[in-house]
Amino acid sequence: MGTKDELLWYLRRGEGCWVSGEDLSGKMGISRSAVWKQISRLRQEGYAIRSSSKKGYLFLGVPEMLLPAEIREGIGTEIFGRRDIAYFGELDSTNRKAKEMAAEGAPEGTLVVAEEQSRGRGRIGRSWYSPAREGIYMSLILRPKLPPNEAPKITLVTGVSVAEALLAVTPLQPAIKWPNDILVNGRKICGILTETSTEMDAIDFVVVGVGMNVNTPEFPDELNEIGTSIYLETGKAFDRVTLLQEFLHQFEQLYFTFLKSGFESIGKRWGELSILMGKDVTVQMIDRSCSGRVLKLDRDGALIIRSENGELEKIYSGDIHIH
Amino acid sequence: MGTKDELLWYLRRGEGCWVSGEDLSGKMGISRSAVWKQISRLRQEGYAIRSSSKKGYLFLGVPEMLLPAEIREGIGTEIFGRRDIAYFGELDSTNRKAKEMAAEGAPEGTLVVAEEQSRGRGRIGRSWYSPAREGIYMSLILRPKLPPNEAPKITLVTGVSVAEALLAVTPLQPAIKWPNDILVNGRKICGILTETSTEMDAIDFVVVGVGMNVNTPEFPDELNEIGTSIYLETGKAFDRVTLLQEFLHQFEQLYFTFLKSGFESIGKRWGELSILMGKDVTVQMIDRSCSGRVLKLDRDGALIIRSENGELEKIYSGDIHIH
Repeated sequence: MGTKDELLWYLRRGEGCWVSGEDLSGKMGISRSAVWKQISRLRQEGYAIRSSSKKGYLFLGVPEMLLPAEIREGIGTEIFGRRDIAYFGELDSTNRKAKEMAAEGAPEGTLVVAEEQSRGRGRIGRSWYSPAREGIYMSLILRPKLPPNEAPKITLVTGVSVAEALLAVTPLQPAIKWPNDILVNGRKICGILTETSTEMDAIDFVVVGVGMNVNTPEFPDELNEIGTSIYLETGKAFDRVTLLQEFLHQFEQLYFTFLKSGFESIGKRWGELSILMGKDVTVQMIDRSCSGRVLKLDRDGALIIRSENGELEKIYSGDIHIH
Repeated sequence: MGTKDELLWYLRRGEGCWVSGEDLSGKMGISRSAVWKQISRLRQEGYAIRSSSKKGYLFLGVPEMLLPAEIREGIGTEIFGRRDIAYFGELDSTNRKAKEMAAEGAPEGTLVVAEEQSRGRGRIGRSWYSPAREGIYMSLILRPKLPPNEAPKITLVTGVSVAEALLAVTPLQPAIKWPNDILVNGRKICGILTETSTEMDAIDFVVVGVGMNVNTPEFPDELNEIGTSIYLETGKAFDRVTLLQEFLHQFEQLYFTFLKSGFESIGKRWGELSILMGKDVTVQMIDRSCSGRVLKLDRDGALIIRSENGELEKIYSGDIHIH
């Protein structure tokens, strides 16, 4: 624990009472002016701390920011969001940064989080609307010992984890739209972008990017009919830290279940949460399109569709339109 | 064509005769002192050019280096080694550099070449012996519009291209040892390391790394029994530029054949060049090993082995020991 994190811990323990500078100085083994310096830094980060030359310091509240100390505080995970966190006020894209860090050797579980993305990305070069402090924009570095053709399942594991987190901390009923969107009332509340780097036949790393619309009060015109946020659906602002912690908790559990016990149980849960099962759809792929009824998720994560001429089609990705 | 390349072209055209500085200055539309400046740069790169205040300049020879202008000179390709070449006297790893450039948007066909690698890499973290100017150490950036599960075939296309290039310009009989080695008389003369970056279900880029032992006169003790070079096998030094050009020519043709017409014809040629067909082998994989007879290459690039208990095994990668 760094000095700043230690100071935060003592301030929080005060639970609404003043903590004297002398006390803090003694407990932490640093000078009173060093305590003051750290307090100033915390304030710069957005923490509300009152000070009095007689009474010391009073902790008033945490900032509405996804600061590493806040993410770590009380998180129920072993690795994800607990060990390595890279925090940025602004970033072009958390996936871009995470790939760069992974290429330089960042370990499994490294979390990259930004308050704002200037070039937030979606599938096939699309953008992800990422206004400052309104959503969760994060990427997680994974290094699973899996053959590369297992990587697409990680997108599905992520989708289930997002849905479970939303079910746990909001009153919303999320639905997974294969392969990488989470919808509420038919509109996108979360998108997932998985990028994989392989060396010959082994995965080097997977970067799982998640963009979640939390307190977004409105969307640009072109997204108005497509996107939604927890705030828009519930009429209430939600604590982003709590939601991120819950997602990381769910994801860590499901990810290690997947690695140890395989995809079966997660695939089953995926089916329950999916919006597509039994629906008549048209899938637009890069080179062709296909219409038919969605039958099931295949063992390898592909979608099985009975096409209009009766044939079974195995689809690995595409844009899905529900009839 | 840059000024330096243009100057080289005029000097070569002299074909053993002196070219006057005035002539060059007039043809190129630059001052005589600018001509002199460019001549100095060429000399620094290793070109042998004699000068005389009366007669001008005499082109004596090209350096034994893989300089971009040398690679481009007379190459029969459309893109590979013709457009974008990044040349380095020394590099940690051409694959590492190529991945970095690809992540920053370098186009298909970009060639990264180094005279020496300080951390040349092989499969699963192994190293590749890369002494200065003795071999070809290169990486090529590809951006094929293929689903990620087709990427392993690119390693096989590369193997066939290396073998064809060796057959074309040396008297050697190369054999491909699946998945990524080229052998001569049972020893490694070339290794291939393919790395792939995917975004969801689409390939973003593939980096194909090739390390070829050309004029290597000797190997460190631990590689003495394993490695060989064209020089060691033929007793003659070979021109690295010619060999690299031939490889790029073969590879460009086969790569676009693969993209346009599929893998079938290349897979057939691969079978002819493979050392493993019909052999009894043991394959050591990450989590297990398998012994049996190699039957064929599967349509997806996997090796099909009839194991000792009669079952067919599909192997995507591993270390192969021939009995």
